[in-house]
Amino acid sequence: MVIKELHIISNGKMPIEQLHEILMDIHPYVTMIHLREKQKTAKELFQAVEQLAKDIPLSKIIINDRVDVAVTAGTAGVQLAGHSLDAVHVKKAFPLLKVGTSIHSYEEAHQEGADFLLYGHVFPSKSKPGLPPKGLEELTKLSQLNIPVIAIGGITPENTPQVLQAGADGIAVMSGVFDSCNPLDAVKAYTMALHKQS
Amino acid sequence: MVIKELHIISNGKMPIEQLHEILMDIHPYVTMIHLREKQKTAKELFQAVEQLAKDIPLSKIIINDRVDVAVTAGTAGVQLAGHSLDAVHVKKAFPLLKVGTSIHSYEEAHQEGADFLLYGHVFPSKSKPGLPPKGLEELTKLSQLNIPVIAIGGITPENTPQVLQAGADGIAVMSGVFDSCNPLDAVKAYTMALHKQS
Repeated sequence: MVIKELHIISNGKMPIEQLHEILMDIHPYVTMIHLREKQKTAKELFQAVEQLAKDIPLSKIIINDRVDVAVTAGTAGVQLAGHSLDAVHVKKAFPLLKVGTSIHSYEEAHQEGADFLLYGHVFPSKSKPGLPPKGLEELTKLSQLNIPVIAIGGITPENTPQVLQAGADGIAVMSGVFDSCNPLDAVKAYTMALHKQS
Repeated sequence: MVIKELHIISNGKMPIEQLHEILMDIHPYVTMIHLREKQKTAKELFQAVEQLAKDIPLSKIIINDRVDVAVTAGTAGVQLAGHSLDAVHVKKAFPLLKVGTSIHSYEEAHQEGADFLLYGHVFPSKSKPGLPPKGLEELTKLSQLNIPVIAIGGITPENTPQVLQAGADGIAVMSGVFDSCNPLDAVKAYTMALHKQS
């Protein structure tokens, strides 16, 4: 059985205490937790990781953009956006760090140094209002490359089977979990959908 | 002869090409060049360093806040503000990196892991409009600690002797150089003032 990955992405909107409570419940069901807290300073991010690490394994935590916070706080990895350092430079300096890169097209897929790609948004998403979704066709093309592809954007437990059939190695979810009135139930529903397909 | 240091701090306002031209002229006269480009992304900062490194020794370049850019781009060090990672964590992860911390009082001086302190602003400064300057008394107290103290804020070639007499190990200048119509002449005037006192 191939395990499909479930990444969840913080939305940068909740107090860290609230995020902590939710993560305590859901972390056993998720592969990776991305801290995407763009408004936080390096110090605030470091302190957030310190707090979360009391209950959440650092091996599941990925920091958005700030490689320095990831390295000093000892998290598993970093998620790089287009405005971030290049994966190749990050991997050269920190070979043990798990490096994800966020891409929006097949053309952006050749990211030397990246361990996985986060591709999207595949479906219409509240996080990307007004932007046309990418759909599943390019995802299929991406999944034939020799690097894991995690799909993101508007993914629900209901459409998860389509995403996996298109070839994704996993899914990443933000609002589907954090905007849910019951994040634990939401995560369990995603987990079920992922397991059905494995 | 004790060499007093001259640090210059970029103002985040000029195109990198213009900064590059000025730095080509003045770098032989300065100890350290701080890239304080708060609006730039990690990628932009990295690219700026790549460009500057064609003509400026990396051993003179210090990056504000972004430890990851400093490490991946191979600059001499990093300047940490109150919102940055703690010096002790940075030094532990990157023992070879030169670590400066920016402080505004004697109470903030005990920064484990820091190689030098940047203290100010000592005189009224255009960069800190409306904020009362710290004056020289606390600088004297700081200079008795076992760590180099670089003074910043409203320093001119004319008041440099006072700053050194107060015990500073060097000075840091932003507008005094970058707002000058002749940055090279300005740097030479600072250099003269520093040498007179050495």
